[in-house]
Amino acid sequence: MEFRFASRMSRFTSSAVRDILKLTQGRDIISFSGGLPAEELFPAEELKSAFSRVFADRRVMQYGLTEGLPELRQLLSQRLAGKGIPASPDQLLITSGSQQSIDLTARILLEPGDLVITENPTYLAALQVFQSSGATILGLDTDENGIRPDLLETTLRDHQPKLLYVIPTFANPTGAIWSLERRKEILALCTRYETMILEDDPYGELSFEAEALPPSIKALADETGFPGVIYTSTFSKTVVPALRIGWTAADETVIRQLAKAKQTADLHSSCLDQAALAELLKAFDLDGHIRHIRLEYAARMQAMLEVLRTDPAFSEIKVRTPKGGMFLWLELPGEVDMEALLRLAVEEGVAFVPGTGFHTDGRGSRTIRLNFSHSAPEVIREGMQRLKRAYIRCRSGTGAEAAMS
Amino acid sequence: MEFRFASRMSRFTSSAVRDILKLTQGRDIISFSGGLPAEELFPAEELKSAFSRVFADRRVMQYGLTEGLPELRQLLSQRLAGKGIPASPDQLLITSGSQQSIDLTARILLEPGDLVITENPTYLAALQVFQSSGATILGLDTDENGIRPDLLETTLRDHQPKLLYVIPTFANPTGAIWSLERRKEILALCTRYETMILEDDPYGELSFEAEALPPSIKALADETGFPGVIYTSTFSKTVVPALRIGWTAADETVIRQLAKAKQTADLHSSCLDQAALAELLKAFDLDGHIRHIRLEYAARMQAMLEVLRTDPAFSEIKVRTPKGGMFLWLELPGEVDMEALLRLAVEEGVAFVPGTGFHTDGRGSRTIRLNFSHSAPEVIREGMQRLKRAYIRCRSGTGAEAAMS
Repeated sequence: MEFRFASRMSRFTSSAVRDILKLTQGRDIISFSGGLPAEELFPAEELKSAFSRVFADRRVMQYGLTEGLPELRQLLSQRLAGKGIPASPDQLLITSGSQQSIDLTARILLEPGDLVITENPTYLAALQVFQSSGATILGLDTDENGIRPDLLETTLRDHQPKLLYVIPTFANPTGAIWSLERRKEILALCTRYETMILEDDPYGELSFEAEALPPSIKALADETGFPGVIYTSTFSKTVVPALRIGWTAADETVIRQLAKAKQTADLHSSCLDQAALAELLKAFDLDGHIRHIRLEYAARMQAMLEVLRTDPAFSEIKVRTPKGGMFLWLELPGEVDMEALLRLAVEEGVAFVPGTGFHTDGRGSRTIRLNFSHSAPEVIREGMQRLKRAYIRCRSGTGAEAAMS
Repeated sequence: MEFRFASRMSRFTSSAVRDILKLTQGRDIISFSGGLPAEELFPAEELKSAFSRVFADRRVMQYGLTEGLPELRQLLSQRLAGKGIPASPDQLLITSGSQQSIDLTARILLEPGDLVITENPTYLAALQVFQSSGATILGLDTDENGIRPDLLETTLRDHQPKLLYVIPTFANPTGAIWSLERRKEILALCTRYETMILEDDPYGELSFEAEALPPSIKALADETGFPGVIYTSTFSKTVVPALRIGWTAADETVIRQLAKAKQTADLHSSCLDQAALAELLKAFDLDGHIRHIRLEYAARMQAMLEVLRTDPAFSEIKVRTPKGGMFLWLELPGEVDMEALLRLAVEEGVAFVPGTGFHTDGRGSRTIRLNFSHSAPEVIREGMQRLKRAYIRCRSGTGAEAAMS
């Protein structure tokens, strides 16, 4: 029997994230690949205790509301208010991680042939969502302040696309942060051309510097009265990923559509996980925990940067110091074959992600993304030694046969 | 700003399931509406204990495999083998409830304009998935043995649709069960015309009679070698719904496509919930628990049937005795306005689902679905008294004004 799959399935040219997740299951590999938080920092005891309390009310084991557990939305609403994002519980949808927020947004907005604008490079699993929906993706170049407004304006004027997808704070994969001025400019442009903005903010809490971050585009839009910003974030980086609890904050009209899409997708997210998270938010100093994570991740980033900046083997590699997040973005000299380097690196026992997959146009062949949040500093140093051996072998051609196999 | 939603959103003509779930949150309403299991039968202590054990391994809090926790798939594979469904762990995908299995199946197969064949009536949230994907739905009439093969053959021959969606065991909403002979006939037809079958089996474990059930279509297909059956079920009815853990068993080629679609949808289902379920399966006599549920649900069904069959107020209502599942399917005399009846019923403090929404062609205006699994027998008797008052008011016209308001 020949299976007749939908044409969208042939657009899944790569399953990079899936392969990455599989790589990280390997025993002896130091993984700089996935966007994984540090397991040893997970609030395991507090979470275990939170779960032990949810079973007191049997109704929490029953089917629940598509929009999410009312108590969790209430707590989240209060938490967001403290971050300058006013969102009532009715303006919130609990999702199965922010990946689902991206997917549901695509479902309610996009038709085959629609144009989606993104940064270039950007989060590859978001690109897969947009590809799967049949949309055409146009990635725009960024400068040090964010996506370039001249490029965006031309595109909005000529095409009036439905959606701009951005990660303005500690972007994946580059770690970059948009300036306040640029956020305002982009918001003004999207307001003028009535293009919705999906602001993906999984890393915004992971700031390494004392200075305050610029407000989210969602917060700025609430000030100007533009209802077209869909904001999504997650507890995956601040509590644990396994819960798969993220959220979307948006205009109620948009939330109602997202809830309809979620109902057909999976009815609702796990009520037990939602209830446990609500218990955790009530009993646990999450902000204190996040401050602890920030310090630790900053130290890990420094450990990785130090090797890159002091070891002569890496002297030709360009890297910037991000102000937060989970990733370093490296630009290698032109002659390095990235696929060969990855194979050699895995041979040596370390994994990373080549940059091409994050690009919308096949560029990025000289770039790689390194995750620094998952491994302790001493593991990072060992991993960088493995990467160094792979890099030297690759550049000297010693690994040419392995790379061809 | 005028939001430009995708055209599929305008096809959500009804949000019946959502409204049902909202109705059931009401305090003073006896709900015969949702497909809710009985809360007092949930294995709360065992589940709490299972959750307390999963935190011993910190990796369970990390991101996991899209396909699902390997240990859970292994345990599920063993469990399915005992039910005549041979499925290796690689032929299984863990999903966020069987609702997600239906949605992912639509994603990998359907394009706008494709034809999907269903029973008429059938599960309304499946209809919403197919509508949302832009498919055309054709519901075929059933007789006492299942979907009518003469109608199916004509349709397959004329249109060669990609997908037939069926609930052959204790169907939603009718409670009907297909005969073995009919299962074989439908399988043979779909094999001949290479039409895939999505066999939805959420209720198959809830049998009320001692006699063995006919094998699933998936099991029969494994015997004949037809790779086109996608089988889905869930722990929502046998453990608890809140976990949102279901699964799909299918040919590996199909599972790989479903996993790609799931990766873009939500990366993976909650690992904590999956790990707790694996712990539960190892330590708990789930089959013993299911036997207990069966006895209790059978008693509840009898309590509801008894009122319908003995109270003269209901003498004109037709109802069959299902052999399992969660629902009674009622046919009312022609002159009853179902919308008026529902409003009066909610006034009286009881809820049900009008049958039209389950139909693909607007029929069913004289039918209603009653759930008997959620309420204890004494609550069922009280709910039926409330329904009786609403029914009498409706037929006598006393409630005409309320119904019009």
